[in-house]
Amino acid sequence: MKNNVLVVGSVAFDTIENAHGHADRVLGGAASYSAISASYFAHPSVVAVVGTDFSPSYRIPFKKCGVDMTGLQVKEGKTFHWGGSYDKDLKNATTRFTDLNVFQDFNPKLTARQSQAKAVFLANIDPELQLSVLKQVKNPKLVACDTMNYWITSKKAAVLKVLKKTDLFFLNEAEARQLTGEYNLITAGKKILKLGAQHVIIKLGPNGSMLVSKLGIVQFPPYILENVYDTTGAGDTFGGGATGYLASLRKWDTLSAIKRAMMIGNVMASFTIESFSVKRLANIKKGEIEKRLKEYTSMLRF
Amino acid sequence: MKNNVLVVGSVAFDTIENAHGHADRVLGGAASYSAISASYFAHPSVVAVVGTDFSPSYRIPFKKCGVDMTGLQVKEGKTFHWGGSYDKDLKNATTRFTDLNVFQDFNPKLTARQSQAKAVFLANIDPELQLSVLKQVKNPKLVACDTMNYWITSKKAAVLKVLKKTDLFFLNEAEARQLTGEYNLITAGKKILKLGAQHVIIKLGPNGSMLVSKLGIVQFPPYILENVYDTTGAGDTFGGGATGYLASLRKWDTLSAIKRAMMIGNVMASFTIESFSVKRLANIKKGEIEKRLKEYTSMLRF
Repeated sequence: MKNNVLVVGSVAFDTIENAHGHADRVLGGAASYSAISASYFAHPSVVAVVGTDFSPSYRIPFKKCGVDMTGLQVKEGKTFHWGGSYDKDLKNATTRFTDLNVFQDFNPKLTARQSQAKAVFLANIDPELQLSVLKQVKNPKLVACDTMNYWITSKKAAVLKVLKKTDLFFLNEAEARQLTGEYNLITAGKKILKLGAQHVIIKLGPNGSMLVSKLGIVQFPPYILENVYDTTGAGDTFGGGATGYLASLRKWDTLSAIKRAMMIGNVMASFTIESFSVKRLANIKKGEIEKRLKEYTSMLRF
Repeated sequence: MKNNVLVVGSVAFDTIENAHGHADRVLGGAASYSAISASYFAHPSVVAVVGTDFSPSYRIPFKKCGVDMTGLQVKEGKTFHWGGSYDKDLKNATTRFTDLNVFQDFNPKLTARQSQAKAVFLANIDPELQLSVLKQVKNPKLVACDTMNYWITSKKAAVLKVLKKTDLFFLNEAEARQLTGEYNLITAGKKILKLGAQHVIIKLGPNGSMLVSKLGIVQFPPYILENVYDTTGAGDTFGGGATGYLASLRKWDTLSAIKRAMMIGNVMASFTIESFSVKRLANIKKGEIEKRLKEYTSMLRF
């Protein structure tokens, strides 16, 4: 049986415009991407809130991937809705609107079963909610956490509190610099270790990812892809896939396990960026992950 | 005996300001960095021009590394002098002045011995001079070429002519996009292959390098370093080291040889960025390159 991973974060609608086209109210949200990504390695259980406009069709990808959605609260009102448009490089998004809707008053309550989770992925949400979740989880063996610039600016003290309880801290390069005031990413990573995280993984977007940990410092390239369609959710997919893989291990805190998790995160993200929403990610065929992992390892071999 | 590599480009003075300090009229220039880098693997011979102010002390690093400087013309006048200052991130340089001086009328004339060179590294200079050099070389087995945004803008037709005669084309990501109008680097690289280069290596600065070739598509991370002092010349060092290594092989045009060359280029660049000028690069101790290559390969192993 696959190990449980509790995933807490947003389940949302995205409306996206980019060079390839337009997507209207498609399934998005950090918890959606990360849980579906994790589902290929572990058994994710989502804690999130949606509105009454979250019609049954939006649940199909979760169901298909065996994601436990019993922790999804449905509140009177509208689902969190993000709208953004991308430059032609598909890298930089301009937010057009952020309608928090029912997410504004999200108060994550774990079920008895969820509070027994051995692994937790705190996707990007208010760090105070992340802390509230951690209080409810009894005895996790792996706490992974993602955050964003908005929280580092507005609730830095809470972010630092979460950090101290985090085994695996994910953030992107701009956020690492913002949080520490250091430009060099190794120096920034080391500062974050001093702040209390056990291992730091800095997401480098199209350039892969970097691990800074007492176990070692590693930079890995991405799984390279020519036909990038939409990069929304790539970072969440990376974090969820890496965490799901580590949750599947008896002993996750070794350098080789974390390196493998980064490779898996890179490969999972490569599926997400091939379509809008989770269309590609939720429909990975048997053998496709292994195939890309093989290509990836062969690229790095010499 | 090491194989000959002809290196054509600038030998210059650099005046640099960055977060770490100030360097006044130190040895710089693309040919300096690339020839010294290549010297650890092959026997480089430089074709360049300097002024009468190029005092003997500037020749010491070349001599130390066994670089043949008989092709260095000395002209009445001043040596090419570049001045720039870097942001605190050490990545983006602002040019303060570019005094071409004697370099303005540089007309590379190869010696009889140089025209027999089996490998050529055309460092970043006017593409018309690169073409003139190629006409003088009898029967090279490896032609490597670097360029820059300035030539892509002002002399694109000549850059395209050089491309058709190039086995290994080096450029950075912004230049690859500028030359092809493509944002995705794989797509850009493939377009450059169609333009006639045999293999394209896109330099990614702090993120390593990417190969686009019929042999394969590869992205490698850099040799990561916490204490970056000055990034001037890193790209030239990368290209020169990679080319010098390939020139040392009996058969260079295989995927594994080019991958190894990229690893070596990454490692050589890591020495350059540890000091101003070639101070560190020209003084690598026995075993240091091997040590970094081992660390690098161990980072990529899993």
